[in-house]
Amino acid sequence: MSTRTPCAGAPLDLAGIRGAVETCLADYLDGKARTAADHRMPSEVVDALRAFILGGGKRLRPLLCVCGWHAAGGTGGTAAVVKVAASLEVFHAFALIHDDIMDRSATRRGHPTVHKAFTRHLRPRRSRALAERLGTGAAILIGDLALAWSDEILHTADLPAGHLATLWPVVDAMRTEVMYGQYLDLLATGDPTGAVEVPLKVIRYKTAKYTVERPLHIGATLAGAGSHVLDALSAYALPLGEAFQLRDDLLGVFGTPKTTGKPVLDDLREGKHTVLIALALQHADPAQRETLHLLVGNSALDEDGAARIRDILTATSARTQVENMIRTRCTQARHALLRAALPAPATRALRQIADIATARTS
Amino acid sequence: MSTRTPCAGAPLDLAGIRGAVETCLADYLDGKARTAADHRMPSEVVDALRAFILGGGKRLRPLLCVCGWHAAGGTGGTAAVVKVAASLEVFHAFALIHDDIMDRSATRRGHPTVHKAFTRHLRPRRSRALAERLGTGAAILIGDLALAWSDEILHTADLPAGHLATLWPVVDAMRTEVMYGQYLDLLATGDPTGAVEVPLKVIRYKTAKYTVERPLHIGATLAGAGSHVLDALSAYALPLGEAFQLRDDLLGVFGTPKTTGKPVLDDLREGKHTVLIALALQHADPAQRETLHLLVGNSALDEDGAARIRDILTATSARTQVENMIRTRCTQARHALLRAALPAPATRALRQIADIATARTS
Repeated sequence: MSTRTPCAGAPLDLAGIRGAVETCLADYLDGKARTAADHRMPSEVVDALRAFILGGGKRLRPLLCVCGWHAAGGTGGTAAVVKVAASLEVFHAFALIHDDIMDRSATRRGHPTVHKAFTRHLRPRRSRALAERLGTGAAILIGDLALAWSDEILHTADLPAGHLATLWPVVDAMRTEVMYGQYLDLLATGDPTGAVEVPLKVIRYKTAKYTVERPLHIGATLAGAGSHVLDALSAYALPLGEAFQLRDDLLGVFGTPKTTGKPVLDDLREGKHTVLIALALQHADPAQRETLHLLVGNSALDEDGAARIRDILTATSARTQVENMIRTRCTQARHALLRAALPAPATRALRQIADIATARTS
Repeated sequence: MSTRTPCAGAPLDLAGIRGAVETCLADYLDGKARTAADHRMPSEVVDALRAFILGGGKRLRPLLCVCGWHAAGGTGGTAAVVKVAASLEVFHAFALIHDDIMDRSATRRGHPTVHKAFTRHLRPRRSRALAERLGTGAAILIGDLALAWSDEILHTADLPAGHLATLWPVVDAMRTEVMYGQYLDLLATGDPTGAVEVPLKVIRYKTAKYTVERPLHIGATLAGAGSHVLDALSAYALPLGEAFQLRDDLLGVFGTPKTTGKPVLDDLREGKHTVLIALALQHADPAQRETLHLLVGNSALDEDGAARIRDILTATSARTQVENMIRTRCTQARHALLRAALPAPATRALRQIADIATARTS
């Protein structure tokens, strides 16, 4: 974790950063397991969070946080910024665990979601209905703990005096933004229209700001960035974040469950109001529109129904339009990077992350 | 909010402290409403939290926090400690909103719970099942926001440099303790036994530490208290907190809904594993035990069934035993206060709070 800043011009070691974040997360959760044992608290709480956090994930936010630090010319050891980056991953675990409850998802990263796993764990000697209620309650609590613990990691990151105080406004903004974004997403669920403004606003808050812009800002702020660097990072982050989410929406409908780790029907059954669906509704003929209203958000949707939706998304050119939107935004992000004149290693790493985030299959 | 420390010996103005906390909460939430409007975010999120927080509550934790500060000899203006105290109330809103989801409670403080209110708000144009799912999701999010905002209030409390750093270990401990306590409570639900150790451990973590000890510690730490003062406050807090929860359990079964603000059947229908129920199971004859197992945790329980449970709680002397436990713990708390040799105004206020907390009817 105490890897040094690379020499000027040497490429950032993204795999090394990811490894340092993993070690930091594992160490923190090991400590939590020991404290729970000392207080004779049930071990399954930490076990579940450990399995969830260490069991997968692209570590996009931690990587961006460390890149933001380098982009702003961070110097000295990376131990503190790696801890801050790890804290973002624990916060993300909170967001996903609660999201999965709200969406009633059964699978995440190829494993049962936390509420599903706890329902199974609590089933013996209880009715099915009670086990489901308590399993969901346990998952709400485990998400709450993850939020509280993401904060504790920041408190114990041994940051130089005063540095934590400069982080709080950005961290507080990030938390509020993602929660509002999630609320807007929830409001739109089951009420899809042809207006793309709604899903675009959700994407802006829930993904572009939360997943890309704020992690970069947090890392950069830690390195003492001024508004010039922060603005340059936003110009890269916002289009990239939108492209990332648009890719996610496409994968949610056209992806392969084996690589995405989640059932391909979830987004459609849930009736998620995406740009993809909005564009399809905009361009659909009356018969296509009726089919979409009938099938999107239908919890009993089967593979045949999904195939009919996919056909309409393709026939209305909604799929192609979203691919074009991704391409435009990727270009904007790359141009913003060129204009930004950040240190070369940070620029290269951010270009690499943009490729991973938008051309991915999972 | 900038009331000055009273002259040595002058009594603490509990009503004044409560008023200062109310003003601080209202100001903070007004600010949040303005920010939401500036970003064209839906107003109902802040409105719901505002109604919940300002609509009731005993403000026990904020009062104890300010008393802890006085107990440790806090000097100067109280503006900062009042903000810290207000942050505890927002954290408590988070805990209650999520608790109500876990318990599926319909009423809190005489009003619909947040998930019930949002289910109603989201009902138009949606099926009942979808509105319920989204209403619960919205309440999870509003609880999450309350947790994040309780933190933001601390970040923006204008504490003297370094003071916030001394608070974090206590705040982090409080958060982890209450969440573990809630998890233990959840595990025991629907699986009541005669063992009092389980509900006593729940009471210790979920109430005694969370409601009384940690708020006192937080206020005292802010005033620079050493371990001697913190230990003295714990000796008062833990028995008082247990007595407070035992009173709550009695009110949950024998209270008047009009004064408690929640339906009297909720705790019994939910199958809450309390000391009261554990003692009754311990002393019940086989027929009484069978009745308890049949009725406690039965979601269809009616007033007749509740009356039968009450008869058994009285006949087995469980009710009297709990009243005795409350009395013993109140005496312990009072003796601890006498031994503690805290400043006289703080001692008087803490004695007054002990009376309010344990002899109450709501």
